[in-house]
Amino acid sequence: MSKQTVDILLTNGWLVTMDDQMTLHPNGAVAVKDDYIEAVGPSADIEAAYDAETIINCQNCIISPGLINAHTHAPMTLLRGLADDLRLDVWLYGYMMPVEREFVGHNFCYIGTQLACAEMIRSGVTTFNDMYYHEAEVARATAEAGMRAILGQTILKFPSPDATNYDESIEYCRRFIEEWLNHPLIIPAVAPHAPYTATPDMLKNCVALATEYDVPLHIHVAETALEQKTSLAAYNKTVVPWLEEYNLFEAKVIAAHCVHLQENEMYTMHRHQAGVAHCPSSNLKLASGVAPVQKMVDLGLHVGIGTDGPASNNDLDMFEETRLAAFLQKGIFNDPTLLSAKQTWALATIEGARALHIGHLTGSIEPGKRADIAVITATNTHQLPRFTRDPEGVYAQLVYATKATDVRDVLVNGAVLMRNKKLLTIDEKYVIKEARKIAKRIDAFLTAREGNLMSKILAISADFIPQETFEVQVKVSLPEMIDLNHMLRQAGLEPIRPSIREQYDTYFFFDTPEIGRLRFREDRIKDTAGNLRETFYRMTMMGPTREKEFENSVLLTRARYTATTHHSLRFNREYFKPAAEREVMKYRRRCHVTYKDTDFDINLDQLNGKADNNVYLEIKSRTWSAKDALHKAELIGELLEMFGFKEEDQFKIEYVDIMGQISG
Amino acid sequence: MSKQTVDILLTNGWLVTMDDQMTLHPNGAVAVKDDYIEAVGPSADIEAAYDAETIINCQNCIISPGLINAHTHAPMTLLRGLADDLRLDVWLYGYMMPVEREFVGHNFCYIGTQLACAEMIRSGVTTFNDMYYHEAEVARATAEAGMRAILGQTILKFPSPDATNYDESIEYCRRFIEEWLNHPLIIPAVAPHAPYTATPDMLKNCVALATEYDVPLHIHVAETALEQKTSLAAYNKTVVPWLEEYNLFEAKVIAAHCVHLQENEMYTMHRHQAGVAHCPSSNLKLASGVAPVQKMVDLGLHVGIGTDGPASNNDLDMFEETRLAAFLQKGIFNDPTLLSAKQTWALATIEGARALHIGHLTGSIEPGKRADIAVITATNTHQLPRFTRDPEGVYAQLVYATKATDVRDVLVNGAVLMRNKKLLTIDEKYVIKEARKIAKRIDAFLTAREGNLMSKILAISADFIPQETFEVQVKVSLPEMIDLNHMLRQAGLEPIRPSIREQYDTYFFFDTPEIGRLRFREDRIKDTAGNLRETFYRMTMMGPTREKEFENSVLLTRARYTATTHHSLRFNREYFKPAAEREVMKYRRRCHVTYKDTDFDINLDQLNGKADNNVYLEIKSRTWSAKDALHKAELIGELLEMFGFKEEDQFKIEYVDIMGQISG
Repeated sequence: MSKQTVDILLTNGWLVTMDDQMTLHPNGAVAVKDDYIEAVGPSADIEAAYDAETIINCQNCIISPGLINAHTHAPMTLLRGLADDLRLDVWLYGYMMPVEREFVGHNFCYIGTQLACAEMIRSGVTTFNDMYYHEAEVARATAEAGMRAILGQTILKFPSPDATNYDESIEYCRRFIEEWLNHPLIIPAVAPHAPYTATPDMLKNCVALATEYDVPLHIHVAETALEQKTSLAAYNKTVVPWLEEYNLFEAKVIAAHCVHLQENEMYTMHRHQAGVAHCPSSNLKLASGVAPVQKMVDLGLHVGIGTDGPASNNDLDMFEETRLAAFLQKGIFNDPTLLSAKQTWALATIEGARALHIGHLTGSIEPGKRADIAVITATNTHQLPRFTRDPEGVYAQLVYATKATDVRDVLVNGAVLMRNKKLLTIDEKYVIKEARKIAKRIDAFLTAREGNLMSKILAISADFIPQETFEVQVKVSLPEMIDLNHMLRQAGLEPIRPSIREQYDTYFFFDTPEIGRLRFREDRIKDTAGNLRETFYRMTMMGPTREKEFENSVLLTRARYTATTHHSLRFNREYFKPAAEREVMKYRRRCHVTYKDTDFDINLDQLNGKADNNVYLEIKSRTWSAKDALHKAELIGELLEMFGFKEEDQFKIEYVDIMGQISG
Repeated sequence: MSKQTVDILLTNGWLVTMDDQMTLHPNGAVAVKDDYIEAVGPSADIEAAYDAETIINCQNCIISPGLINAHTHAPMTLLRGLADDLRLDVWLYGYMMPVEREFVGHNFCYIGTQLACAEMIRSGVTTFNDMYYHEAEVARATAEAGMRAILGQTILKFPSPDATNYDESIEYCRRFIEEWLNHPLIIPAVAPHAPYTATPDMLKNCVALATEYDVPLHIHVAETALEQKTSLAAYNKTVVPWLEEYNLFEAKVIAAHCVHLQENEMYTMHRHQAGVAHCPSSNLKLASGVAPVQKMVDLGLHVGIGTDGPASNNDLDMFEETRLAAFLQKGIFNDPTLLSAKQTWALATIEGARALHIGHLTGSIEPGKRADIAVITATNTHQLPRFTRDPEGVYAQLVYATKATDVRDVLVNGAVLMRNKKLLTIDEKYVIKEARKIAKRIDAFLTAREGNLMSKILAISADFIPQETFEVQVKVSLPEMIDLNHMLRQAGLEPIRPSIREQYDTYFFFDTPEIGRLRFREDRIKDTAGNLRETFYRMTMMGPTREKEFENSVLLTRARYTATTHHSLRFNREYFKPAAEREVMKYRRRCHVTYKDTDFDINLDQLNGKADNNVYLEIKSRTWSAKDALHKAELIGELLEMFGFKEEDQFKIEYVDIMGQISG
């Protein structure tokens, strides 16, 4: 009987098929023709029936379906190690978003994806599921590398690196889908980033686009406890019911993270056949928690495993993820029998494919499926010895003792992408050289920013306004509390717009004084009856020293930039990393007076905590003109005389420095 | 100026010293002379001042102190992958201990340790802290491999693979210490296994031995919640106070695991300068939990990181452990700033050395310290790009993106153990060949056991007794409840030793009927007033069929082996893996009668749950003689007649089979 000719034979390997029967062939072979698997079985049978020009001997190796990385942001490989051990907001708003705004373009996405593909192929990944910007560049790089991927174009309600609004993103996404829809490796997808970055209208448009082209919809769901809490507070429902309201699950959904799903949400997702991408490393590293994977699996959900982007991992090593996924279920849910090695290897392969809605194409080694295969050395020192009485011990060897670096050969869609650890489709040296160039530019950008308070502020504040306001001011220390209205009226002035303010100021100081200092003010404005009317949060960047001292010790200071701040003091502390901090709390009675057609603030201040009896009177005016400042300083001198103060009563320094002197 | 000559120069590397100032030299060098570090600094300075025959160019590499594996059981590398995804008791009592009893000897410990050393050197480990049996063989293998180690001879209150009692272990340990006390690499230690496997007397002797020779004392502490719960129940105190009572902390303690330490216990350990070995993988895999490492570190405890034995890991990869240690603190204690990369790398190096009480010798790269150094490639694809604006980014690269397989060269005590990934002190091929031989024998042993119920029982039960008792019995179905005493007295018999028993039987059935079946009985014995007097737990292995049927349908059955069982039904289920189970609950009124000088059990039984009205009378006697069995069968026939029963009233099968018929 003559042999049938195929393209590639993988022979003599420990074959782990991951088919429905979880068939194992201790000495197995696979026949590959074109892009698909022609036959699978004992090596002797396959070798007897097939011949091929390329025969890959897999002795001492495991032949397994390639791993499926169910959630990543491939281009972010370029941001690996950029900023670590930070809280999510500081990491995201302080580093990731400013750098992405500045650097993410076509070249970034292309090079970043090629670098990611190099790392993924090296670690046995054959398919990945992506969400990023400029996804057409991601597609180009992935197709050139020869990997299979679902590529989701990110859609946000905010401006993003590739769109000024979500209509633009959706339009980009439509063109991207049309361009790549019938590609043999690439499945384009719609990726509304997350419930909390979406509007209902945006979601509806995303679902319409995904269903129109029958492409997957990739979204982050319930990554943090805060997300669920915020959703409950805003809509009185958790995120999955909220998404269901906008018919999200009519699309083929791939939900990343799902750390904080409630049981009813799992049922909803199961009913709609949504896939889940579990990202154990990222969920730990960003302190999101541990997803209840065993529970989801038991409910019948298809759960895959993902690395997330290397900016929060910091690598694309699916062996690490798989091992960690098994370990975490056992250790955190108190049962060492949870997620057995066999179950976990299924999540990393066939269940991952099902979670991505491509279980019919890949994820197992079966005749008719695409030839997406990893050949993994099984005889390295750290994998030995090996016990063979139970053939299923091979799963424990794969999950608990095998490393990404044990992967020897990788095939995707019938093409060999790596042979004997050499990449065949990627010019690794070139990609690394280009990646280093980009990293160098990012380093330079951040170095400049770190040394420059203003650019660091600008990186996180859209509304930061250059003020360059001069403040002309004088402070007088009073021996005891006075009746402000009485004093003003005795001098013939009418107090107007009276208010009471509690001002909590925190000053950040830096090691290099030329940077200046930052003031964060929580300003609680009350009416004279003590009712809170408004609270303002403002950040002010101040010059390091006073600008000038006029006659009568009137000071000229300058608040150089000011912005409303949306971030907590804690965020600012971790982002700006001040060398020192000082707090000033003022109880301020304020009114305005008009003297010689000029408006003055009159503040009667008590500083908290220190020197309780000290009361200060402050007279202040603002100006944009240095010449006007001189004029106003003169007027303040006249006011001081009218109120009966002498020069020696005056304080020449700011409250924050008074506080420093008292505490020092 | 002439250059000073040293033995080895490591030049041009990214030098991470881990000294007290955490000094970094972006282009650094180390001069090594004899066994110690002569000088450390910028490469240009060191190269200007020193010359050496061996110059190792570390361009593109990080030079770091070697990693310290703070807790392992090196010879157990031979048990890697032997049994996974099992509960702790099944894993330990069902697999580890029976295999260790059978296989652990001199050769096992020598080969296992050499295999472990090969894996550890490959992954950059220079020092490890061991606890096992035949520790002199571990020492011989370690010294030959050239690694530094603290080697603790295990001491248990039970018989162990190398001693029949703890006095013998302690004597062995004394000889071991005397033999190795002044070795340049090996520090012998005393290793009482754990509080729950120790007696107070044993602990006192261990402390006396450790303090006499000033060697460390290595012990597992608070690994599981159960351990703390049991200690509280037994002694009304948690384990650390209990250990303190016997002056354990007078020794230089290294406490492994410490997953469930209370805060006061941390303070106690800190006061006594005890070291902690954190084992994150093992604690997850065996479902013990996550140790509060950041809290211990903040309290000032010296915490190292350990892999534990590869039987519960399943490897010796300190890079995986270090990464996991950082991730777990963040993810489980909800704060991504916990255990920063810098802090975690310290745990893996200098803090590990301090935890082992050898911080003065190793753990950092400083002049005067032993030359224990790892050279780690930093330019592999999965590590790139790299950001350099913050020199401390190197720690994130090491902890989050570097793999064990990136280690290129390793020095211990000034000797090169690995160069360009080639091991220089271990014949890796030979060790692997020998390891495979041992694994093959273990596989054969377990395969034989799996097919033979008796040896499987013998593996876990010290008191399993061959019974070979014949039971002569007859059962009669009654239409309604009867007055047993009245019936017996009418027949002229006196009921003696009456009792009531609630018997909960679980039968395990197996696919191959020739294996027989197993019965687990919980026997709750009450007096006639219903007060519980005693509860027995017994396991009985029964033949698959009845032996013989006599005239009058009297049956002869045989309980072949019986033993008290200390394991839970759940343990037995997971260990024996029955194909099917059936439960029988009996409410039994029992008394004895003497008829023609022969003792008979008379049981009046109600079976629960099924056919409530069914009441059974059972007449039973035991014998060791087949001939006597025939005689007793005749007597039972006479009794049946005296009670007025006919042959058709008789049941010929066991209750478990009645239950099967009813439910089937």
